[in-house]
Amino acid sequence: MEQTSGPDGYSYLGPAGTFTEAALKQVAAAAGKPWHPVNNVGEALADVQEGRSVGAVIAIENSIEGGVTATLDALAARPGLRITGEYLVPVEFVLVARPGKTLDRVRIVNAHPVAYAQCRGWLERELPASAHIPSSSNVAAAASLFADATADAAIAPPGITDHFDLDVLARDLGDDPGAATRFVLVSRSTALPERTGADKTSVIVELPDEEPGSLLAMLEQFSTRGVNMSLLQSRPILGDAFNRYRFVIDLDGHVHDERVADALLGLRRYSPKITFLGSYPRADGRPVQYEAKHDDEVFIEARDWLRGILSGEPAAD
Amino acid sequence: MEQTSGPDGYSYLGPAGTFTEAALKQVAAAAGKPWHPVNNVGEALADVQEGRSVGAVIAIENSIEGGVTATLDALAARPGLRITGEYLVPVEFVLVARPGKTLDRVRIVNAHPVAYAQCRGWLERELPASAHIPSSSNVAAAASLFADATADAAIAPPGITDHFDLDVLARDLGDDPGAATRFVLVSRSTALPERTGADKTSVIVELPDEEPGSLLAMLEQFSTRGVNMSLLQSRPILGDAFNRYRFVIDLDGHVHDERVADALLGLRRYSPKITFLGSYPRADGRPVQYEAKHDDEVFIEARDWLRGILSGEPAAD
Amino acid sequence: MEQTSGPDGYSYLGPAGTFTEAALKQVAAAAGKPWHPVNNVGEALADVQEGRSVGAVIAIENSIEGGVTATLDALAARPGLRITGEYLVPVEFVLVARPGKTLDRVRIVNAHPVAYAQCRGWLERELPASAHIPSSSNVAAAASLFADATADAAIAPPGITDHFDLDVLARDLGDDPGAATRFVLVSRSTALPERTGADKTSVIVELPDEEPGSLLAMLEQFSTRGVNMSLLQSRPILGDAFNRYRFVIDLDGHVHDERVADALLGLRRYSPKITFLGSYPRADGRPVQYEAKHDDEVFIEARDWLRGILSGEPAAD
Amino acid sequence: MEQTSGPDGYSYLGPAGTFTEAALKQVAAAAGKPWHPVNNVGEALADVQEGRSVGAVIAIENSIEGGVTATLDALAARPGLRITGEYLVPVEFVLVARPGKTLDRVRIVNAHPVAYAQCRGWLERELPASAHIPSSSNVAAAASLFADATADAAIAPPGITDHFDLDVLARDLGDDPGAATRFVLVSRSTALPERTGADKTSVIVELPDEEPGSLLAMLEQFSTRGVNMSLLQSRPILGDAFNRYRFVIDLDGHVHDERVADALLGLRRYSPKITFLGSYPRADGRPVQYEAKHDDEVFIEARDWLRGILSGEPAAD
Repeated sequence: MEQTSGPDGYSYLGPAGTFTEAALKQVAAAAGKPWHPVNNVGEALADVQEGRSVGAVIAIENSIEGGVTATLDALAARPGLRITGEYLVPVEFVLVARPGKTLDRVRIVNAHPVAYAQCRGWLERELPASAHIPSSSNVAAAASLFADATADAAIAPPGITDHFDLDVLARDLGDDPGAATRFVLVSRSTALPERTGADKTSVIVELPDEEPGSLLAMLEQFSTRGVNMSLLQSRPILGDAFNRYRFVIDLDGHVHDERVADALLGLRRYSPKITFLGSYPRADGRPVQYEAKHDDEVFIEARDWLRGILSGEPAAD
Repeated sequence: MEQTSGPDGYSYLGPAGTFTEAALKQVAAAAGKPWHPVNNVGEALADVQEGRSVGAVIAIENSIEGGVTATLDALAARPGLRITGEYLVPVEFVLVARPGKTLDRVRIVNAHPVAYAQCRGWLERELPASAHIPSSSNVAAAASLFADATADAAIAPPGITDHFDLDVLARDLGDDPGAATRFVLVSRSTALPERTGADKTSVIVELPDEEPGSLLAMLEQFSTRGVNMSLLQSRPILGDAFNRYRFVIDLDGHVHDERVADALLGLRRYSPKITFLGSYPRADGRPVQYEAKHDDEVFIEARDWLRGILSGEPAAD
Repeated sequence: MEQTSGPDGYSYLGPAGTFTEAALKQVAAAAGKPWHPVNNVGEALADVQEGRSVGAVIAIENSIEGGVTATLDALAARPGLRITGEYLVPVEFVLVARPGKTLDRVRIVNAHPVAYAQCRGWLERELPASAHIPSSSNVAAAASLFADATADAAIAPPGITDHFDLDVLARDLGDDPGAATRFVLVSRSTALPERTGADKTSVIVELPDEEPGSLLAMLEQFSTRGVNMSLLQSRPILGDAFNRYRFVIDLDGHVHDERVADALLGLRRYSPKITFLGSYPRADGRPVQYEAKHDDEVFIEARDWLRGILSGEPAAD
Repeated sequence: MEQTSGPDGYSYLGPAGTFTEAALKQVAAAAGKPWHPVNNVGEALADVQEGRSVGAVIAIENSIEGGVTATLDALAARPGLRITGEYLVPVEFVLVARPGKTLDRVRIVNAHPVAYAQCRGWLERELPASAHIPSSSNVAAAASLFADATADAAIAPPGITDHFDLDVLARDLGDDPGAATRFVLVSRSTALPERTGADKTSVIVELPDEEPGSLLAMLEQFSTRGVNMSLLQSRPILGDAFNRYRFVIDLDGHVHDERVADALLGLRRYSPKITFLGSYPRADGRPVQYEAKHDDEVFIEARDWLRGILSGEPAAD
């Protein structure tokens, strides 16, 4: 394992074999470049910020290797970075044990906390009294069964049996059969990815005060321009125990869409504490839906109309 | 009385002695220019539209000589025109009769309908059974007492006794002691009057449909930018019996104020059926109040921020 | 003509032959009862308030005999009264003159101000320089042609030639071929007319202050319950020159509809200065449209749910 | 350690010595009753639901022993339960190691994932390249230093040195000096705790659809009644990958406050998928702030007013 990926390489939460590596494999530009496994999200982002890597792949939602809050808080703390791509990795879990162990004898389960959370329904149903030992990754959970005898079984991805001599005690543990983890590619580049018609825009916004209706006023900036949110995640602001929040927001559309740009203008006026995280193609390729009245042409026509008034031209209508 | 005022003259609802003439006397640019009394608001606006006058003074609210609805509908029907100034004329009424007539013998009162309406409280209290004969102006109401014997008394401005041999039977008939009529100066010029900090902007907007919440969505365009309305007047749209309305709206501020310009952009996108009537100084000179968060600088800063994002500049924060 | 209609009679703006009388003919309960023509809306309402009549029919919108503002202000000033029915009378106008007069020689037109307003387009097109002498009613306009020689022609309803020896110079003067005047029946009774499914509810509301967003907050009371407005008419509040307004509002639905009742509750909390004018069947019989999510059952279910919580019952779901 | 706490006992996330136990010590009713340490939040709630305990104390926000999302999802999955109290435990962290180890030699840190997250700033600053081994609790993190030699140091509460022979390498690791963990007491009882004036109400609401403005419409239910939110936490709905969310909401006030009850009514109508989690005293005892116009009396007066209209009483005003 090399120490840094170099200025054209990519950092990701390792070790090799994790879901994050599966996401990195989807990044076309990363093919043939050095990949650098790191220990935590902060380290991955620092690699990019300080020029040791050109990009980092990190889990952002419903994650297996670290979860949304660590990533979101890390992004809020490092505003120079930009999201330039999104990737989905399907989530599947099996329960594995060393040969000879049977399901009725499993008392202690080793699992990454997020994997454990995603299998909670199955565990409550099939192993209601089991205790949990958390591991740092899905790979580490399986490896722990060889390191000591504390855990009886581990939760891991199906491919784990390619690498370890383990029996599968149960399949399809995940509570949500369509589950996937969402990853983003983060870089220093402030060049905007091209608009594809199936884009997302991510921002972090801090409410200016804690008045009733303050969040409402913020959301009106979107609804009044017909901009849909696909993510609204509140995060407490440190030092303001339980009183104030920032919001991580994913919008449908690209900042090159007039309605998104205008919504961002409104948002910036509403709260100067806004961080633009990027506009980038959606992993699912689903085109953004919006009503004709929020089309680019409507914005352009209105600007032309106002320009006519301001310049003193006689009105056409 | 000349037939037209000429290309540098002013049209107003006559005859000489009306409240509209009092408003025209306040128009500095009209001093020394020909004044052209006309019979109705439509004629006054047609004079301007067709170049027979450079301006017209017409009553727009709480009016004595014709009232808001005729003016508002006439402005909606002639979108090439612009309001360039606003003037207030205080309203005072007396009840006059020919010498010898006493108040207890008054059965029929001659009055312009709007003057009559503004004295309704006094009339219901003091002359509850009186009938009303409407006249075309306050001057005509007083004159009618000499023309025939139908009416016993007339409602008129206090100065009427300078011109006619009439006794004042009662003073201060108006229900509202602070009442005034609001007049506007209308011209063809599309040059915008300078911003003074105490301005109004007038528009006519047609709602795009009659959904619940449609008006609400329109008003959010103002509230979200902290723009106050000083007038919201609904007018039925002809041909849509009782179903659809247009709105005549006065906003606090000038279209050169960023928040007003941005609200107009939003309004135009919301409803392409918008007519800009003008930005002009308020007659009462009262400076526009607004919160610091809606200042021009906030709009400019947000545009700079967005421009940085769109151009791919590294973020400053 | 009797002086009062008596406790079981009806007051209306006379004389016989006016459009208001045509509306009164539609009131089933008034058949065979005494009818009392009065001189103005205030007198009609006073008759009801003081027990001289059981009901009064007055024009409330797009009116011929007196117009919306006089009626709306009179209703606001007399809160003990209730609207119990709505009636529509189609509007048609002809231009009449004494035999021998031709259209090209018409200089002065006698007309009730509202009739004049409704024919403004025709007059500007066909008689652009004509002057206007206002009359107190359409009947009086025609009658004036015999009283003196001032006016050359009069605007009147088509039936006028049954009563007067006049020639019709032009037909269909009204700018809106589908125009109608809307009348209401006003009584002292506070018993609510039955809900028919095609009802209206009328209220007068004063905004609590003149903040930006104040009107918006009021309208949210309707939109949040899916209640549509069919009329929103602003009226200045006397003594607050051009600064504050009250609003006359017609809502789709009956106060016995849960969503309307709940909206009125919200309105009352928002502004204690609210006057309930009544719930009554629509003249056009058009059933109220609303989304299923605003049905009575949804309100009842929610109350049952809350009652369960407040009473400490175990939750069903 | 007993197997169950019994019908009058309390379940909590063990082992003894955790922050959850510190919260349970604040529960007055739990003094002298059996306490039952369990392995996870689901087990704690199942104990209550199935009658094995009378109450469970679980971390709900900014948690050390398990975190908000597991708790929130568990509460959403078990709607028969109620929150009846809230407790705060201050958060403090030290870095501990076995005697002889110095800070510059620390490469691998054992820590509960949430503790690790709360110390992220300190770790990035002081130990930027350190790897993380997660443990199931803060107590287990410290204990692991004796079990094997993998980790060099552990993050733990300051009191840990009472129980283990460990050196403190650094103090005050937490990024937020005022940090605290918020715990709730959960029971089966549907009797509402008394209103104290310093209360919270918790609900879980699922948006009815994913239209733009859908969340906005939900939040209007609060703002229109002047009800402030102190928590708005979105949680993905399983099976709807990244498309739909439910929201966990804490409101200022008690369901016995009229404005809160009315907001819940509106919420229930808006989305039948609402779970009432309880009204209970705030841990910080801070009285709820609200404007006079949202006082109980305003709601009661409005209901009286509407009742008068519905019953046909003559209006008082």
